[in-house]
Amino acid sequence: MTTDHKNVELSHVNQHGEANMVDVTEKSLTSRTATAEGFIKMTPQTLALIHHGDNKKGDVFAVARIAGIQAAKKCSDLIPLCHPLMLTKVKVDFEVDEHLNQIKVSSLCRLTGQTGVEMEALTAVSVACLTLFDMCKAADPGMEIFGIKVLSKEGGKSGSWQAKSKGA
Amino acid sequence: MTTDHKNVELSHVNQHGEANMVDVTEKSLTSRTATAEGFIKMTPQTLALIHHGDNKKGDVFAVARIAGIQAAKKCSDLIPLCHPLMLTKVKVDFEVDEHLNQIKVSSLCRLTGQTGVEMEALTAVSVACLTLFDMCKAADPGMEIFGIKVLSKEGGKSGSWQAKSKGA
Amino acid sequence: MTTDHKNVELSHVNQHGEANMVDVTEKSLTSRTATAEGFIKMTPQTLALIHHGDNKKGDVFAVARIAGIQAAKKCSDLIPLCHPLMLTKVKVDFEVDEHLNQIKVSSLCRLTGQTGVEMEALTAVSVACLTLFDMCKAADPGMEIFGIKVLSKEGGKSGSWQAKSKGA
Amino acid sequence: MTTDHKNVELSHVNQHGEANMVDVTEKSLTSRTATAEGFIKMTPQTLALIHHGDNKKGDVFAVARIAGIQAAKKCSDLIPLCHPLMLTKVKVDFEVDEHLNQIKVSSLCRLTGQTGVEMEALTAVSVACLTLFDMCKAADPGMEIFGIKVLSKEGGKSGSWQAKSKGA
Amino acid sequence: MTTDHKNVELSHVNQHGEANMVDVTEKSLTSRTATAEGFIKMTPQTLALIHHGDNKKGDVFAVARIAGIQAAKKCSDLIPLCHPLMLTKVKVDFEVDEHLNQIKVSSLCRLTGQTGVEMEALTAVSVACLTLFDMCKAADPGMEIFGIKVLSKEGGKSGSWQAKSKGA
Amino acid sequence: MTTDHKNVELSHVNQHGEANMVDVTEKSLTSRTATAEGFIKMTPQTLALIHHGDNKKGDVFAVARIAGIQAAKKCSDLIPLCHPLMLTKVKVDFEVDEHLNQIKVSSLCRLTGQTGVEMEALTAVSVACLTLFDMCKAADPGMEIFGIKVLSKEGGKSGSWQAKSKGA
Repeated sequence: MTTDHKNVELSHVNQHGEANMVDVTEKSLTSRTATAEGFIKMTPQTLALIHHGDNKKGDVFAVARIAGIQAAKKCSDLIPLCHPLMLTKVKVDFEVDEHLNQIKVSSLCRLTGQTGVEMEALTAVSVACLTLFDMCKAADPGMEIFGIKVLSKEGGKSGSWQAKSKGA
Repeated sequence: MTTDHKNVELSHVNQHGEANMVDVTEKSLTSRTATAEGFIKMTPQTLALIHHGDNKKGDVFAVARIAGIQAAKKCSDLIPLCHPLMLTKVKVDFEVDEHLNQIKVSSLCRLTGQTGVEMEALTAVSVACLTLFDMCKAADPGMEIFGIKVLSKEGGKSGSWQAKSKGA
Repeated sequence: MTTDHKNVELSHVNQHGEANMVDVTEKSLTSRTATAEGFIKMTPQTLALIHHGDNKKGDVFAVARIAGIQAAKKCSDLIPLCHPLMLTKVKVDFEVDEHLNQIKVSSLCRLTGQTGVEMEALTAVSVACLTLFDMCKAADPGMEIFGIKVLSKEGGKSGSWQAKSKGA
Repeated sequence: MTTDHKNVELSHVNQHGEANMVDVTEKSLTSRTATAEGFIKMTPQTLALIHHGDNKKGDVFAVARIAGIQAAKKCSDLIPLCHPLMLTKVKVDFEVDEHLNQIKVSSLCRLTGQTGVEMEALTAVSVACLTLFDMCKAADPGMEIFGIKVLSKEGGKSGSWQAKSKGA
Repeated sequence: MTTDHKNVELSHVNQHGEANMVDVTEKSLTSRTATAEGFIKMTPQTLALIHHGDNKKGDVFAVARIAGIQAAKKCSDLIPLCHPLMLTKVKVDFEVDEHLNQIKVSSLCRLTGQTGVEMEALTAVSVACLTLFDMCKAADPGMEIFGIKVLSKEGGKSGSWQAKSKGA
Repeated sequence: MTTDHKNVELSHVNQHGEANMVDVTEKSLTSRTATAEGFIKMTPQTLALIHHGDNKKGDVFAVARIAGIQAAKKCSDLIPLCHPLMLTKVKVDFEVDEHLNQIKVSSLCRLTGQTGVEMEALTAVSVACLTLFDMCKAADPGMEIFGIKVLSKEGGKSGSWQAKSKGA
């Protein structure tokens, strides 16, 4: 089931416009999964530096993967109104597109809990992109990070949600 | 002075392809500034929820600003090969574009130190965008974060650098 | 039910006087809530700076609210013998008293868990007060934080507890 | 020299009422010290539990001391607009007053840096008090923390400052 | 029941050799306990400094105990592929061996959860040893930490496991 | 110059036996380097899993390297009386010994600062060893970490120090 979210209220701000952490105490524990993606664009020369045919520079991706996984675990420390939660799985993957000179970063987060994990998935993608930027910035300070969005959410009262195939 | 960076080596990976933290011990202390920007696109309805004419929902931006400032300070904990450093100024600002239905987030980081602060500026922008996403996601899970890049760097041996006016 | 606590042992120190983290493994999961309050006293001039009739300086309270919420989530990192736990709600509010020249900070923390959340509520109040102090200290370094206490606890084996109406 | 601070502006909020981290980039490095104090009041029975004549329960104070020292180091992570800085000394001490049934916590923070350390000293005192509360709360949930204030500041452009002898 | 672990695959690396966080979403919640130990060797003079007959220097052990407990709680922040989890008990103890001039540090971690806690127990032991090193290093920089291993694990699908009596 | 440290006092405990953070405010800024090492012993089968001739499982070492680097940066958060400091270089390396069935982890930390960095180097080694343990523990829960010690220190008032060639 895919639902369109049409809430006309912001759950994270109360009627006085003040920041509001949503109370999830009464929500039931359900298995929840979210996936997200993001991209980083660089010059062909820079991409070649980290993506040889023989993949010698594999540590670049290993470092970015670890950074993304660690960041997902820190999400509630970074995003003020996120609830602390106990992720049972975080996955970060990379796909090099040599035609478009960009790298796709995708993530999956999962837990059995009272609240969704799309912010964790987005945080993993964002920090993995930032880490790729950091590792390549001496060669190419003009890189750009883009296309960060949620791809899908499953679990919880509102059921499944899928991003439409063409963007925001 | 504006210089084009044409390094053909990745400073963050050694000759064996292993992750390498750059040694900045011998670098002199200079005043350094970096600016960055990023965007989040949402539906007009969502933008209206956080940007009334009377700006009642100001806490949305206040929360995102604080999240961005705090994230800049955590940069070396998030990005594995970043050096710990002592920022002397972090600034995060928002500009609402009601025609394009998007919000521009811009940041400035500054310190007197041995290494540049562009990763801190990018981290501030990224986490501020993620926080805006979090606060609006109940209304609009299809938002997209894009256009995260460095705008300028000043200070240090390599002098000033400016992003070209059109994109990556 | 209101119970008077008359334990004559310190649960957090063992018989040798050594620090002891209480073992809550066998405790059942129950819904628990705690509320706390604290105050900060300042000069009338300082209070006026953050509390105009038109409330223009709203960010002062927004920043302190976020700091308090974030601190509640960090409680087990700050208080050595506190258990890590997953708060499902944190609330921080402010009440300005222009007659007494002070601000009351109140907090509520909630979760379904094995241990109470009064330390989290107290930490939220303390750090929100410290943040107000920080934001006003250039104008008024002589401010004082006082009256930090638990107002009520609900849930858990020992049932409900209410602070007596007059003080410690 | 003791100066009265009479600034009529809040340095931590800009002219639009938005949170503002003070730019200390141009400030010179000077040696800075701040001292602060706070109190926790408890029942005579509780005080006796942690303060025997033979001081067997010394770990209570050791734990609170470490918590206070660690908290001072975390200050910029707790207080959103505080600058990260490198403390060169943190000291936390305790004085038991058996007549008033309270414990005085005092702290000293020091560094050579561009910004004052009174928030670090206040944070050390606050978290040490919270830790004492945590360790005694099973016996005495009605304790109260009070009297948290800066005692003195030295160093920096504004010179020395001393709290007046009687309160805020 | 004691089982010999003979898995011939590394669960933490996938078939491409990439870091892999094990998915524990489907694992049932069971009560789990792990114990670990480690040792630090020093000169007799140094050992005497921290272990008088009258035990005046008790704070050395109190500080190391707190550091070990706090580190167990930080385990998932330190070890990249560890899951965040909510320890319900952490215990750190010390035993001085004046004949071998060494201190044994032992730990116990416990929770009801989906994954084992041996890494938490090992982290507690390691950081407690490092803290003892730190507190004695001015007197004795040649100390050595050794013998860090898991003693036992209980709970979970694989049942109980005991270290063999003589070493690795 | 190699000096034998013969201090007969513990700098980290005061005359009352209380934890004491050394005051380094007056120490001059000098370039400081420390190196440390540690070992992890495993079964030949486990070692073979992470160390093929074609080194396919390279991510195991990449993850442990990142964990060690990140841990060095967190040292003052882990070791209570360590000063916060700004490392300008952290290096973690691995050497596989197929005859002894063990891996040597070595680290180097460097900065220009007021205090030595041997605790940072030891922390890097310890956490890198723990990470190797974590990644291999499903195959081999009986591994042992040993031989963690400082190899050398340079810089600061006390000059250079070298570990003796044979052990503690």
